[in-house]
Amino acid sequence: MAGLAVTMGDPAGVGPEVVVRALARIGNEKLERLMVVGEAAWLNRVASCLGSAAGGLVYVEIPESELGKDLPPGQIAVVNPLSGLLPELEPGQDYAEFGRASFAYVRRGVELVHRGYCRGLVTAPISKHAWHLAGHDYPGHTELLQKLDQSPGVGMMFWGEKLKVLLLTTHLPLARVSASLSPELVVEKVVLLHDLLTRCGRSGPLALAALNPHAGEAGAFGGEEERILRPAMTALRARGIEIEGPVPADVLFYQAFRGDYEAVVALYHDQGLIPFKMLHFHDGVNLTLGLSFIRTSVDHGTAFDISGKFVADSRSLEAALRLAEELVNN
Amino acid sequence: MAGLAVTMGDPAGVGPEVVVRALARIGNEKLERLMVVGEAAWLNRVASCLGSAAGGLVYVEIPESELGKDLPPGQIAVVNPLSGLLPELEPGQDYAEFGRASFAYVRRGVELVHRGYCRGLVTAPISKHAWHLAGHDYPGHTELLQKLDQSPGVGMMFWGEKLKVLLLTTHLPLARVSASLSPELVVEKVVLLHDLLTRCGRSGPLALAALNPHAGEAGAFGGEEERILRPAMTALRARGIEIEGPVPADVLFYQAFRGDYEAVVALYHDQGLIPFKMLHFHDGVNLTLGLSFIRTSVDHGTAFDISGKFVADSRSLEAALRLAEELVNN
Repeated sequence: MAGLAVTMGDPAGVGPEVVVRALARIGNEKLERLMVVGEAAWLNRVASCLGSAAGGLVYVEIPESELGKDLPPGQIAVVNPLSGLLPELEPGQDYAEFGRASFAYVRRGVELVHRGYCRGLVTAPISKHAWHLAGHDYPGHTELLQKLDQSPGVGMMFWGEKLKVLLLTTHLPLARVSASLSPELVVEKVVLLHDLLTRCGRSGPLALAALNPHAGEAGAFGGEEERILRPAMTALRARGIEIEGPVPADVLFYQAFRGDYEAVVALYHDQGLIPFKMLHFHDGVNLTLGLSFIRTSVDHGTAFDISGKFVADSRSLEAALRLAEELVNN
Repeated sequence: MAGLAVTMGDPAGVGPEVVVRALARIGNEKLERLMVVGEAAWLNRVASCLGSAAGGLVYVEIPESELGKDLPPGQIAVVNPLSGLLPELEPGQDYAEFGRASFAYVRRGVELVHRGYCRGLVTAPISKHAWHLAGHDYPGHTELLQKLDQSPGVGMMFWGEKLKVLLLTTHLPLARVSASLSPELVVEKVVLLHDLLTRCGRSGPLALAALNPHAGEAGAFGGEEERILRPAMTALRARGIEIEGPVPADVLFYQAFRGDYEAVVALYHDQGLIPFKMLHFHDGVNLTLGLSFIRTSVDHGTAFDISGKFVADSRSLEAALRLAEELVNN
């Protein structure tokens, strides 16, 4: 896990717990030079509540100047961008203080990457409502990361062993999906996907889902396939990208599940995430394409309903850490 | 399989082949008083091409007046609404003659039910283009059945061991789904679903999918959940129907797959069929709700690409026959 920074996420959510659990399960010998961005006191308190599930790891805040140095076995480096301790508030709620903190963790994580202290960023869940309470009006991590990294375009992808899916649109009403699609958007995002997969040595074919039932059935059930998706396919193939489509979505995800494609391009949130979560509900990873560095994330939220109960599942964060490690080494 | 009529479907498609294969696999002892609506000569020719996969069954045309009588073992009753033999045309294409034939088979099938010769109808695939060539402007089986049965409202449902899903809308552009939904539509269709399940003694909870990502996130990503779906939930619960929702679709289908619900209500074609086909690509059954009789169907089309090659898979029709039998006996 060399060269990864992991943010702690919103202190009132399950983020700190899944960080502590995941690092314990990954095991100390693999955690060399991994660092957490958050608060050591908070993490150690969570670790003591978790008992043996914390793996005996101790979280130690260190100044940036000492980040390159080796720590004794069993100690995990923590970078804390805040002065003063976090208030010990009831878990499972939105607080401006915690929005401020989780926002600062992400910003510091990006700075650590930009300054060369690490090569990849792995994020635990934040609450966007808490961000809003703190005066930060970003819809989520992705938009903040794009801004901080000054990326011209980013893509949201979900990565699992059985299915990898890129979303062309994300958090918008279903009725607005059609108007949000264009050949340029398809090309831009698929190029990002293709670049990443090529970099990992994954050269299998891609497939683009159709928007309408039966891929529009030659225009009978909608014209976006002919007007938007086919021109995009032509442009992508002209760039040498092997991609099939538009394939009727109900057939495509069965085929992808069977292993016919390296990755699938979905046009809207639920089109990609219904099949993805059926296969990877507990171990899915959210991956941002188009940044100057690797960024992975858990694919769940703060889970306020169970935070503070110490029953959270850390498999998604473990998978996010392992995928980030694989990708930074490619 | 007592009391079922099975249509042969479009002669140029895989319908006749899957009928012959399915009846052979189900076995003669269970086929008592099942009848096929189609042409015996065509079925016997298919059977002879299939060899042992036809199970030694012989198809015999009989007049309606003899329909109640027992046939010798190994003989299957065929009702042919047409006079004269079908022309032996190349498979895999649309022909007006075959559109006329497959349309007549469905109409006769419904008549057989209405006259009390059978209690359920199982249909093999037709080509709607062939229907159009023959001057029949129905989009598919469902609309024709509704007309012939004079049903006030019908519902399209897909039934599998692992997932059962009702579609509130079917073949329309995705961009028009939102405008097609109303609280009345949700209530009408869910009542049909609830009636069928109750009749089968299936009393588990139902769930309604949301339209927008994260179920609209309190209006941030679309208002249909508040405006249309919640009022429908209230009306359904007032009728004593146990139903949850609107549940974010990416979470719901994972939960349904895990077994949390008896059946799921999907708002649009791909929302229901992406997960359904992942689980039941080969053995899914299409079921029409709201008719005065039981009607099941294969969930695939004429498969013109493989018709005449004798490689078709009859599992969907077998499942459709078994489900129809189960339902007519309830």
